Amino acid sequence: MHHPHHDGSPLHVSNPYPRLGETVTVRLRVPHGFGEVKSVFARSNPDHEPKFVPAQLVGSAAGWDWWEAEVEVENPVQPYRWLVVRADDAAFWINATGVHETETRDAEDFKLAIYPEPPHWLRESVMYQIFPDRFARSDAANDRALPEWAIAARWDERVDVLPPGRSRQFYGGDLDGVIEHLDHLQSLGVTVVYLTPFFAGRSNHRYDASDFNHVDPLLGGDEALIRLVEAVHARGMRIIGDLTTNHCGAGHEWFQAAYGNPEAPESEFFYWLNDEHTEYVGWFGVKSLPKFNWGSKELRRRFIEGTESVVGRWLKHPFNLDGWRIDVANMTGRYLADDFNAEVRQTVRRTMDEVNPDTILLGEHTNDGAADFQGDGWQGAMTYANFTRPLWGWLSEPNAPSSYFGQPTGVIPSYTGRQFFEAHRHFSAGFPWRSRLGNMNALDTHDVPRFATNARAGALPVAVGLAATFVGMPVIWSGDEFGLVGEDGEASREPMPWGRVTPQGEEVLAMYRELMPRRGEHVALTDGGMRWLHAGDDVLVYVREHAEESVLCVASRAPYRLRLAADAVLGGGRAELLFGPGRLVAGDGEAGVELAADGISFTMWKLPGVVAP
Amino acid sequence: MHHPHHDGSPLHVSNPYPRLGETVTVRLRVPHGFGEVKSVFARSNPDHEPKFVPAQLVGSAAGWDWWEAEVEVENPVQPYRWLVVRADDAAFWINATGVHETETRDAEDFKLAIYPEPPHWLRESVMYQIFPDRFARSDAANDRALPEWAIAARWDERVDVLPPGRSRQFYGGDLDGVIEHLDHLQSLGVTVVYLTPFFAGRSNHRYDASDFNHVDPLLGGDEALIRLVEAVHARGMRIIGDLTTNHCGAGHEWFQAAYGNPEAPESEFFYWLNDEHTEYVGWFGVKSLPKFNWGSKELRRRFIEGTESVVGRWLKHPFNLDGWRIDVANMTGRYLADDFNAEVRQTVRRTMDEVNPDTILLGEHTNDGAADFQGDGWQGAMTYANFTRPLWGWLSEPNAPSSYFGQPTGVIPSYTGRQFFEAHRHFSAGFPWRSRLGNMNALDTHDVPRFATNARAGALPVAVGLAATFVGMPVIWSGDEFGLVGEDGEASREPMPWGRVTPQGEEVLAMYRELMPRRGEHVALTDGGMRWLHAGDDVLVYVREHAEESVLCVASRAPYRLRLAADAVLGGGRAELLFGPGRLVAGDGEAGVELAADGISFTMWKLPGVVAP
Repeated sequence: MHHPHHDGSPLHVSNPYPRLGETVTVRLRVPHGFGEVKSVFARSNPDHEPKFVPAQLVGSAAGWDWWEAEVEVENPVQPYRWLVVRADDAAFWINATGVHETETRDAEDFKLAIYPEPPHWLRESVMYQIFPDRFARSDAANDRALPEWAIAARWDERVDVLPPGRSRQFYGGDLDGVIEHLDHLQSLGVTVVYLTPFFAGRSNHRYDASDFNHVDPLLGGDEALIRLVEAVHARGMRIIGDLTTNHCGAGHEWFQAAYGNPEAPESEFFYWLNDEHTEYVGWFGVKSLPKFNWGSKELRRRFIEGTESVVGRWLKHPFNLDGWRIDVANMTGRYLADDFNAEVRQTVRRTMDEVNPDTILLGEHTNDGAADFQGDGWQGAMTYANFTRPLWGWLSEPNAPSSYFGQPTGVIPSYTGRQFFEAHRHFSAGFPWRSRLGNMNALDTHDVPRFATNARAGALPVAVGLAATFVGMPVIWSGDEFGLVGEDGEASREPMPWGRVTPQGEEVLAMYRELMPRRGEHVALTDGGMRWLHAGDDVLVYVREHAEESVLCVASRAPYRLRLAADAVLGGGRAELLFGPGRLVAGDGEAGVELAADGISFTMWKLPGVVAP
Repeated sequence: MHHPHHDGSPLHVSNPYPRLGETVTVRLRVPHGFGEVKSVFARSNPDHEPKFVPAQLVGSAAGWDWWEAEVEVENPVQPYRWLVVRADDAAFWINATGVHETETRDAEDFKLAIYPEPPHWLRESVMYQIFPDRFARSDAANDRALPEWAIAARWDERVDVLPPGRSRQFYGGDLDGVIEHLDHLQSLGVTVVYLTPFFAGRSNHRYDASDFNHVDPLLGGDEALIRLVEAVHARGMRIIGDLTTNHCGAGHEWFQAAYGNPEAPESEFFYWLNDEHTEYVGWFGVKSLPKFNWGSKELRRRFIEGTESVVGRWLKHPFNLDGWRIDVANMTGRYLADDFNAEVRQTVRRTMDEVNPDTILLGEHTNDGAADFQGDGWQGAMTYANFTRPLWGWLSEPNAPSSYFGQPTGVIPSYTGRQFFEAHRHFSAGFPWRSRLGNMNALDTHDVPRFATNARAGALPVAVGLAATFVGMPVIWSGDEFGLVGEDGEASREPMPWGRVTPQGEEVLAMYRELMPRRGEHVALTDGGMRWLHAGDDVLVYVREHAEESVLCVASRAPYRLRLAADAVLGGGRAELLFGPGRLVAGDGEAGVELAADGISFTMWKLPGVVAP
């Protein structure tokens, strides 16, 4: 895999956040072993018509020739790829899925986009996901009367995965509970807290908001959120909330006003199935979650448009949230012939920019989200297709029977390392580099089984190592750091085991505390490019590259010993072990570099920065 | 390649033209050799959220199990794919690019779309492309005075590829000349004539219209077109025109009114670069071709919207054209942050449906056009990426130096048969089946070198055989049937060699006359599915499948002898040779079918129809 290379990182792109009409300098590296090159072109596609710009050879360094071309950003999203013609007339196309001998499709081009740059802290983040009812319970929780729908549960009681307990079992975690454990988060290298919804609903998950104006009193109310945000900010961390733009709860005042009342101004907020407005469209047909009709201008005004909208107000004093994760972003605004998705995501982001541009906007899109994530709204995806599912495929017990992200496979499909790599590359390719930097790389979330449930023995450090070093944002779903297991999305919502962590849990915790903070110590992991060196059945080798330093990573699920070209790996420098049991031996001259380890493992080395002419 | 199979043909899809909300029955065939199957699901993606519907095994026939599922068409374009879980827990995804062991992206799903069904004659067509100045000259042409820009040329004079001759050299072909050669067209099995523009311009190609209201008097004027259309219709053929929705000529009255006159109502039809409206945007910067700004409602009204618009009027009495090919459809309406392409193509089609639904609308998109061809406007693509370029790659002399579709490769890149297949499948996959049926499969056009110029010895019947039997519409660029060559898009516009066809030309003509009419004789070629059996370096084997009959095709660029599973090829029936030198020997039992030929060739056999339970 010692191939010509380009990615969206600063080594290869002069400005990833250009204005419309701006010219961006892009660079392609061709390894000396590739054969004599006759010509190189950057091929952009303005107005969907190919345009070839000749590249110039600007010099050589450490075994690579560097070619440079100018790409004019003529449309809001400007795709480009490379054409390399060798002296033997063989032609190669290089795009976001690699090197190809046949022509490639537009959707897999590299891309530049003109939308405002997301906050730099997005790409530097380690995220921690908290489901408030299950994270921690402050003493104040003891004084709160439960609503009728709630079924009280003791903190150490098993999660009830069946209705009615499923959504009503109530443990009473609250926001002051979160404040009490911020030390724990910091010990993990966490920089951003992601809270699942804090609005009152009629369920423990609160994705059925009855009100977007106040924090659920069961969580401590508005004041508790203000305290939490201040405490988080005081530690230099950030915190984001969770909004349902696809639906609200049936208890929401807008829906209550509209239900059975076609004359209500809020009627147009929903999709009705009868004239009396008593039958309506719910998310997946669920009646407790009426779906929004974003054709309504008034809904936009109240919810997402302008500084006084729901989206805007929570980002302002006194709440000062640092952004939003948007639930079911993929389905938002889409129903039958309606597709308001682009308008909604662009409006949400515009409102956020008006209130505070230093905020982030992430969208849930659990499958092929690329088309919605070109940079015009959502700045990163909560997705499983790019990282989570390929990871499970490679590092779970082969064909383990399991619930599997809504796919009726019955088992976790088994992937080779090569398949992990290909699936990751395939699904990432549609995202511009700027959006890949904001994608959430999670082992699991509150919606799925925990990865550890079916993981191969010894796989946890490998999975965490991959999450910590891939392009995008590592995400810790709370409890994963104690090695918790859970067979489905309900069971994985087990309350945190404060004060009763097992010795194995402590080991997992120590590993998280060693790996995750690396993210903040190495610019290569947050800003660097990503180049693959090897993708075999059992071993993956890649390097995150930056001018200041690079980080070499080897992930394996079995013992390995492999030899790679020294130029490809080291670029003439020396490696310094950062983590893991792997060994690296640099031979003389042609001998190359030997990488080895005796078992399933994750190893990373620091390398010198990439020298570019 | 004996794999599970699905495509958009009637064997597998109950209704390819559903209404919104309709449920369509789709079928997947799984060969018995695939291994025991535990479950099959159709996975659609309504509102961009996966939905799995279990399929039922409906029976077996001729070595295949047939599974059936119901897909609800919940959005205007409803993607779907298949998930097959084998008894050994291996999971396979089947989409428009084949069978995959890892997850696949949405853009490569099969698709159903709700837009009105194109005329059935589109998929039954053999198209013949005529460039009026070069096709045939009636006696009337002798009496016409040439305009100032034109440089008169004798019919047997060489084409001048350099300016000013390039666009001004004028041979004087006219529409009555076309009428004189309709016998010739019919002898080729042609059913649709495609005329490049007949509006007056300031060039021999007429893509710079000065007027959309009248036929160029140099072609015989409106009356000549009326005569031509009537003559074509009298023979049961159809005829379409060519419109430039991206630009007009600088001589057009709209542009003349707007130039230097910001107050003119037509000012908003164009993109101006200075306040005086004397600098403007042209197609590729060409000043003779000012680009339209489709933000203008008045431009839409005059040009594309309603029965009295340009688009509408030519489809009505007395002209009665059967449709339009749209020039530069890919760039139409696209400029900087503007993208009116979808509105333009939808409006054009809507107007055509108002005037006469029995008309076709094709769009030029020479590269990855799939995203614009989901069925909402353009009904088929004049594209080179799906068929023409892969064909050249496989059947041209290796790395022949040549102009190559605007790509600066310097040579025609060489493809193996496998690469031909993969490129074809890759680029076709984005098109719903309904649009693939309307895609133009041309060996070349008036814009590129002629295929024969660099073809391998003996390759012409192979190329024509592929065009005649692939999904989509075979297109003959006039002159190809005489084996003409031309080194670039200008040279390929040589006047037709009436009365001086070489013996080699007569041979090529005989081959066209034998192959192209097959299209009209076999429902499998116009309505059938397409299943690949083999794609090697030198041999391609596929079968067009239908309930009434199937057609087996073998294309090769070298001698071959290969053996395929009898079930895969014959489905229990017998083969009847239709064309070509190939041999087919069906062995007993496990022996399979042997296919062989002694050299580069195209062979087709008729097979019994596919038996479905």
